[in-house]
Amino acid sequence: MAPRVQSLDLANTSKVYYAPATITQGNNSRLIHVSGQVGTAPNGTVPADCESQIHLALLHLRKLLLAAGAAIQDIAKLTLYIVDYDPAQRKHARPIQRFLKGHRPAITLVPVTQLAAPGLLFEVDAVIACPENVPVSLPSSPTSQANPEAFDVAIIGAGLAGLTAAHEVLRAGLSCVVLEARDRVGGKTWSQPLAGGQGIAEMGAAWINDVNQTKMIALARRYNLELIEQNTTGNCVLQSFDGKASTFPYGELPKAKLTKGSFFIQFDQVTSEGVARIRDMCEADCQALDTFTPRSTALDAMTFEAYLRSRDASETSLATATVWTRAMLGVEPSDMSALFFLNYCRSGGGLLQMRSDRQGGGQHLRIRQGTQSIAQGLAADLPAGMLRLNRPVQRVLQDGPSYVDVVDAEGAGYRVRKVITTVPSPALSNISFTPKLHPAKEAWSQSAGYGFYTKAIVVFKTPFWIAKGFCGLAQSFVGPASVVRDTSSPADDKHALTCFMSGIPGQAWAALPEPERNEKLLEQLAILYSDRATVDRNFVEVLKYDWVGDQWAGYGCPCASLTPGVLDMLGSASLREPLGNLHFAGTETAGDWKGYMEGAVRSGERAAKEVVSGLSSSVLPHL
Amino acid sequence: MAPRVQSLDLANTSKVYYAPATITQGNNSRLIHVSGQVGTAPNGTVPADCESQIHLALLHLRKLLLAAGAAIQDIAKLTLYIVDYDPAQRKHARPIQRFLKGHRPAITLVPVTQLAAPGLLFEVDAVIACPENVPVSLPSSPTSQANPEAFDVAIIGAGLAGLTAAHEVLRAGLSCVVLEARDRVGGKTWSQPLAGGQGIAEMGAAWINDVNQTKMIALARRYNLELIEQNTTGNCVLQSFDGKASTFPYGELPKAKLTKGSFFIQFDQVTSEGVARIRDMCEADCQALDTFTPRSTALDAMTFEAYLRSRDASETSLATATVWTRAMLGVEPSDMSALFFLNYCRSGGGLLQMRSDRQGGGQHLRIRQGTQSIAQGLAADLPAGMLRLNRPVQRVLQDGPSYVDVVDAEGAGYRVRKVITTVPSPALSNISFTPKLHPAKEAWSQSAGYGFYTKAIVVFKTPFWIAKGFCGLAQSFVGPASVVRDTSSPADDKHALTCFMSGIPGQAWAALPEPERNEKLLEQLAILYSDRATVDRNFVEVLKYDWVGDQWAGYGCPCASLTPGVLDMLGSASLREPLGNLHFAGTETAGDWKGYMEGAVRSGERAAKEVVSGLSSSVLPHL
Repeated sequence: MAPRVQSLDLANTSKVYYAPATITQGNNSRLIHVSGQVGTAPNGTVPADCESQIHLALLHLRKLLLAAGAAIQDIAKLTLYIVDYDPAQRKHARPIQRFLKGHRPAITLVPVTQLAAPGLLFEVDAVIACPENVPVSLPSSPTSQANPEAFDVAIIGAGLAGLTAAHEVLRAGLSCVVLEARDRVGGKTWSQPLAGGQGIAEMGAAWINDVNQTKMIALARRYNLELIEQNTTGNCVLQSFDGKASTFPYGELPKAKLTKGSFFIQFDQVTSEGVARIRDMCEADCQALDTFTPRSTALDAMTFEAYLRSRDASETSLATATVWTRAMLGVEPSDMSALFFLNYCRSGGGLLQMRSDRQGGGQHLRIRQGTQSIAQGLAADLPAGMLRLNRPVQRVLQDGPSYVDVVDAEGAGYRVRKVITTVPSPALSNISFTPKLHPAKEAWSQSAGYGFYTKAIVVFKTPFWIAKGFCGLAQSFVGPASVVRDTSSPADDKHALTCFMSGIPGQAWAALPEPERNEKLLEQLAILYSDRATVDRNFVEVLKYDWVGDQWAGYGCPCASLTPGVLDMLGSASLREPLGNLHFAGTETAGDWKGYMEGAVRSGERAAKEVVSGLSSSVLPHL
Repeated sequence: MAPRVQSLDLANTSKVYYAPATITQGNNSRLIHVSGQVGTAPNGTVPADCESQIHLALLHLRKLLLAAGAAIQDIAKLTLYIVDYDPAQRKHARPIQRFLKGHRPAITLVPVTQLAAPGLLFEVDAVIACPENVPVSLPSSPTSQANPEAFDVAIIGAGLAGLTAAHEVLRAGLSCVVLEARDRVGGKTWSQPLAGGQGIAEMGAAWINDVNQTKMIALARRYNLELIEQNTTGNCVLQSFDGKASTFPYGELPKAKLTKGSFFIQFDQVTSEGVARIRDMCEADCQALDTFTPRSTALDAMTFEAYLRSRDASETSLATATVWTRAMLGVEPSDMSALFFLNYCRSGGGLLQMRSDRQGGGQHLRIRQGTQSIAQGLAADLPAGMLRLNRPVQRVLQDGPSYVDVVDAEGAGYRVRKVITTVPSPALSNISFTPKLHPAKEAWSQSAGYGFYTKAIVVFKTPFWIAKGFCGLAQSFVGPASVVRDTSSPADDKHALTCFMSGIPGQAWAALPEPERNEKLLEQLAILYSDRATVDRNFVEVLKYDWVGDQWAGYGCPCASLTPGVLDMLGSASLREPLGNLHFAGTETAGDWKGYMEGAVRSGERAAKEVVSGLSSSVLPHL
């Protein structure tokens, strides 16, 4: 008879007198009891702050889940042990809530004075319902019954990455099918026409530039799209801790500008210098990283907030950095690894360039017809029948080295030689892979998480802010919008401010009843640019789209970020690495301009090149 | 498919991101959730030290396991709560590791500032996988099929206890079969011939005396065995904390000798008096105990170490006492109940007598032909066919009051009226008993544990230590050998030092690679007695046997010891008490000379008397 309790081990744990986890046997239910997990980095060190330790401990818990074939949803109970617990802060709640992704296990919190080893500030143990060891059922129907269509390549997703890849694959003389879950192309680019023909509102990605986003500018030109330069003429606004707004002129170049301190004119000299020092430090540290394969156990063991605090960032510097992370990823500095964020900045040429609205910056040019026009153009240029909308892929089966079976939600089957998935890693769980994704890929997919990020496009009758000498750019320490940008299209008589409702204040705002949401937003815009009467008099409508509710994006936007420890544990290349005949694209897999449209296109090209090269090497010898 | 974990909500809890409780689904598995167990003695008192509390709390946990019909292997999770936790000490690790006996559940350690009641320093709770309620399967084959042989008595084990019992049973006119698991007789007496005919090496028990070991000396004489008096002429050696050796003459009587302090001549006056005080206190306390039924809730609630510390033992006194427990039982003073150890000493006439190499002491006489000769003699004197080697007993089935079915590993059955088991209690788990052993017996068997104990017999060409004025006796605070004794046989031209590799230093030594083990040992012998050149020049070979790997001994030697609380809870007689027609012998069941060959013989006589008397009383009325 098998023992009723079996130890479940990771590498190197089997010599210890207790197991990291155990499995209880039963006919229909098994529970996993997890030993206390603590926040050690892969090199055995322990970061100095509690939140970084929490992220690392949860990463260890995730590894145990993976080892057991279990998911977050299988967690029955968590017990949290916290040293120096401060009930006024409850810093554990946010990372744990993010980790759970909506799953609601039982939780007990136990403040303690110390843990098993000096320096430990957090420990978590868990009870997990273990999935049955169901033998992998090989594909029966519908693939084997339904005479699958045959192609060289199947591409999952008709966003910029997928459509780019499709064109590259076609160009190499291979056949291809593009399977899109939505009823439209474009993925996270989605341009909605405004009422009355007054141009479009970008619900998703909006900006490109013509300096270092060579792929996107070429596509814009190929489809004869009109470019709108981001307005940086006039004053910017900063809404500070006290909710009050002050103005400052948009400088010639963010870096030069910022160096003079004028961006932070409302700060005193010391505060201003402190912010400049932190900004320059982040810039220098991100420039020191490799774009494709960043490496630093130290930076990856801590959150971006812990990194900033360890470098004596002032509260104002922290608030400034928080505006960055909210506007760029929808997350708080405590939500992600310092290494991840710095590398993310690096991918856009650096913090300053990525955040700039000027030439070469991340927010320099908009597309009058909407960014989705590019995906629509690429789709229209594909041979008929190649693109299949409303076809969410359900299963990807690699039975052997020579082909892959893909099955969509309608039961249609596709037998192909290569698959490129452009699905964002948090959305990979929509697809059943056989064999299962490699543990590293699984760990990455499960660890990657979006922040809270909603754009509210507020349309006005007139650009009253221009009349008042504002360029439209504002940032706020208090919200609800963290950043506001002018997204008008004068040629369309469209006057709009796009408000980035991100991170904690954005989430709080989204939880309000609908009427209050508009009210709060208009109130903030009045503080930033004008008076309430002017705002109300000009107000037309608010457009917004809740990416948090979007299944195919993986419930978020614009790009998933990683908590501490993941990059270091898995290696930064593991998300891009193919598994057999399965290749991975999408903007988050990009080196340059990760999270941007440019990154998506480049990732599609890169994956297509892998596929073409792989198929060529196997085909050419026979020619 | 229903989710494996469902949230269980109370009114108003469903908006919170965690649930107050969860339910895991399952049909057939049951879990035992154990309340926090604390270290209370049977009278409700709590010992002052943490380790004693740990042992007692684990004993309470064991009782719960027994009550549930579960075993150590069924523990899924332990949570340890420790007051005044010191990460530099981790004192919990050793007792818990010993308790678990290699099983590896998940464990979380929670340092706390206090527990539910004042004075509590340790608490443990547990999750245990509950065994199925399988109805006891009554014996079918092979017993019922195989025409079992019929005897009055089956004796399990052909060591000194079993062979003695066999002779007594025969003497009473009853029939008998002796079932031995090994391919030899003698149990923990095992005399291996040396190469070149130079006598034997005792891998197991070695010493007897002719004063108070009346049974053994009679057997030795019955088989015409030659006795070798232990050499006590010359100096002894003490290797102290610093690893340096100093000498002292072996006194006339240990007690007189020690009283003069000369035994500890290298200690200063205060140290020496302290050691003498502790030794005299142990002697007095053990003499105050009853040999067969020792009783003291206070002494049994604490470890021997806690007992010594509570009496202000100095570090030197503790180290001295540690040499005793290592050499006598292979355990540390923190591993066992003070009552158990003091009673163990009492069983040999007291600490001083048990430890003495002089007349009447525990190590006075050796047997030139080897102690195993006695078992061999007893076996040869049995009627042919009565002794069955290589017959490990697998099952003992008491179906009713009149007979017992015994089944061996070959499937052979024996239907008998009485069974005597001489199996050491840690090895009782090799046998399946139906009905199960009484909970008290189970608790004893599970609580009894060996320490680490290996004898390394180092053979030399000449007794160079004699030439240097040593008697051969040495003790060491640092190891690897804790005690060394001369085990030469001049008549055989055999010159040997037997090194007791016990407790923590012995275990550390055993973990070394083989070549390093000899190296360390020879190095220590050079320090103790001579110089390295002399040792190397005289070295012939090392013989040793790993009792820790011996299944039939219960993985240890010479005698199992008990943690705090067991004797007091179960009563000291419970190990000897028969269960129906099943009787218990073996040296650990002895009153006098527990753990020695003398105790084994006496236990065999006692069990045989029980059996003969039981069978006679049921038979005689019919005559």
